[in-house]
Amino acid sequence: MAAHAADNEGNLYTGPNTEDTPAIVEATAFSGGIVIAQVNERVPTGTALPRIDIPAGWVDFVVQAPRPNVIEPLFTRDPAQISEIQVLMAMMAIKGIYAEYGVQRLNHGIGFDTAAIELLLPTYGEQLGLKGKICRHWALNPHPALIPAIEAGWVESIHSFGSELGMEDYIRARGDIFFTGADGSLRSNRAFCQAAGHYACDLFIGSTLQMDLDGNSSTATLGRIAGFGGAPNMGADARGRRHVSPAWKKAGEQARAGRHGAAGTPRGQKLVVQMVETFREHMQQAFVETLDAWQLAEQAGMELPPIMIYGEDVTHVLTEEGIANLLLCRTDEERQQAIRGVAGYTAVGLARDARMVENLRDRGVIQRPQDLGIDPREATRHRLAARNMRDLVRASGGRYQPPKRFRNW
Amino acid sequence: MAAHAADNEGNLYTGPNTEDTPAIVEATAFSGGIVIAQVNERVPTGTALPRIDIPAGWVDFVVQAPRPNVIEPLFTRDPAQISEIQVLMAMMAIKGIYAEYGVQRLNHGIGFDTAAIELLLPTYGEQLGLKGKICRHWALNPHPALIPAIEAGWVESIHSFGSELGMEDYIRARGDIFFTGADGSLRSNRAFCQAAGHYACDLFIGSTLQMDLDGNSSTATLGRIAGFGGAPNMGADARGRRHVSPAWKKAGEQARAGRHGAAGTPRGQKLVVQMVETFREHMQQAFVETLDAWQLAEQAGMELPPIMIYGEDVTHVLTEEGIANLLLCRTDEERQQAIRGVAGYTAVGLARDARMVENLRDRGVIQRPQDLGIDPREATRHRLAARNMRDLVRASGGRYQPPKRFRNW
Repeated sequence: MAAHAADNEGNLYTGPNTEDTPAIVEATAFSGGIVIAQVNERVPTGTALPRIDIPAGWVDFVVQAPRPNVIEPLFTRDPAQISEIQVLMAMMAIKGIYAEYGVQRLNHGIGFDTAAIELLLPTYGEQLGLKGKICRHWALNPHPALIPAIEAGWVESIHSFGSELGMEDYIRARGDIFFTGADGSLRSNRAFCQAAGHYACDLFIGSTLQMDLDGNSSTATLGRIAGFGGAPNMGADARGRRHVSPAWKKAGEQARAGRHGAAGTPRGQKLVVQMVETFREHMQQAFVETLDAWQLAEQAGMELPPIMIYGEDVTHVLTEEGIANLLLCRTDEERQQAIRGVAGYTAVGLARDARMVENLRDRGVIQRPQDLGIDPREATRHRLAARNMRDLVRASGGRYQPPKRFRNW
Repeated sequence: MAAHAADNEGNLYTGPNTEDTPAIVEATAFSGGIVIAQVNERVPTGTALPRIDIPAGWVDFVVQAPRPNVIEPLFTRDPAQISEIQVLMAMMAIKGIYAEYGVQRLNHGIGFDTAAIELLLPTYGEQLGLKGKICRHWALNPHPALIPAIEAGWVESIHSFGSELGMEDYIRARGDIFFTGADGSLRSNRAFCQAAGHYACDLFIGSTLQMDLDGNSSTATLGRIAGFGGAPNMGADARGRRHVSPAWKKAGEQARAGRHGAAGTPRGQKLVVQMVETFREHMQQAFVETLDAWQLAEQAGMELPPIMIYGEDVTHVLTEEGIANLLLCRTDEERQQAIRGVAGYTAVGLARDARMVENLRDRGVIQRPQDLGIDPREATRHRLAARNMRDLVRASGGRYQPPKRFRNW
């Protein structure tokens, strides 16, 4: 494993990217394995590490690397690249889902879609009077796009899977919100953050490359196989959960009222939202009759197709055309038409049964922007609390220091 | 929190009962909280702790207690108290479920029912030729009842939530199976073992005080409220799981083939078995029309009744009358009759539709002992690999040292 520094005894300091290191080291050290740590530096005898993340007794060998390990800024999205379609979708997410269910604890996937939501909280969210009512606690990497919401007082706590380059000083300054040690640096923990994402969060919202008519989605496509990240774990109902929140309870009530033949026992349910533009880059259709995953499974001899999030677990599909609330669908056919009904001009969308889709809209299963009181012409980039990287730096009081590749001013 | 020992710097050694201590301390130390540790002893300057479980930097105060903390032997079951009905049920579990699905990774609840299974592996399991084919990896506390199976070479690994009094020397001798540190003592970890129980295990088997006709079960009853332990987490399908095992895949196939209206997308499912005698102590009926949980919820103003395991998540109900495979039920009515069909002479059992139950039996949804080739007259205590505490000590090569209350020879 890699750590930032070791002392003479072999104690390790990981820096803010603790991530899954303690879990991997513990599993190895206590099952007779050998733990080898690569470190960027060794602190001189008599100098204390900023903090100890891994005790020396769990480590067998320490090697100082000739060059520091490389960390990629995976969670930084330049607000300048957020489109007005993404602003529109973010407005629908906030008003049609977050406010509707009163979502307090949540996880956001990576991407411009959810970055747009983060940047609309202090503007559009404020305008709707939602501060303190939604989005107070997060299982999230330190997304720079969340800085304006944090500074506007929206956020009470953020537990992180890992860290993000350039956010070190800002995190140190906001130890009231991030999980920091006595030394001020972030203690991330992927294992615990996944547990929080699975059990503590009322909502997961992410994106995908393909979705089929059953609502199954996958980022494993023929041209491009992207990892699932934490989506399978966080984008699935936590059926061991027993603590109640209003959002979780309401989703469970809708699921049980809607679905024919479901057991009458009341139970909550996690909100799992897939937020996708109907066409992605190069005019590829996001909605398909059959996922590429099936073909990949056959080619690679997998026992099951690589599905990222199962349709059974998805509660809402959100596109630029509207929101489909799958919880309210009573049959598989309704469910398919609800998905077709927000699939726009894709082949799947064009094949909709127009009358059934209108009926679903009358019942509130499908909601268009205008049904939510959102005028698409008002979905402009001016609503974003930061419109470029420099705005983010300014919002942070100069504490956020973006990596060079993001410095274009 | 409580630890076994501290050194002068404040590093802590928890001993084998590490349990949830690191998770609680991490959450507190890295969110600005104050960590106070009560320890049994302080090691003198210059003496090293056997190992460091919590680094000093995470701890604010260390207090030496006047008396050592007390640990209860919660997972020890005297084989002398296992009844022949429990032997019969254990035989059905092994032949009708474990062998049927090829269950390799599993978790057992506490109790005599599952202790009987553990003690039948090296005898009845061996006789069926199942060694190496089932029960190789466990998420389990160090149950003394598993000693004969370990010594007979059935078990490859056991990861534990906590430890068990008297098992220290035995665990040290079997560091090849238990997760032990360089010092030889157990490193338990409740958070990680719960994750393993949720995600890595193909089967959870536990018991309950009450079960209703939907298969919902609870240990919260009017006369006695017992904690749920890890049952809600481990007795629920892990819907974020993506790795395939034969047992998981077969359960998922049965669920999808059986249930009307289910999506056609293939997916695995966890086996969740409730093992209950139809009458528990004082002739209380285990099967009821309505769980006491509903009344408790009303009395205590809970938003949902305290259900331990939801019927939706249960795959098999196992009683002395037989096994009901709920995965194969096509309707809610079939499901109710399948439960009535193994509920014996309880009011719920007597109200069965005899013809429908016979039909379910013809289809293999209900299996009686004789359908499994098990003659109840052969379900005797002679089959147990250890019939009393002394047998367990002997099987351990004298390494297991039961607490005094269990020494009756």
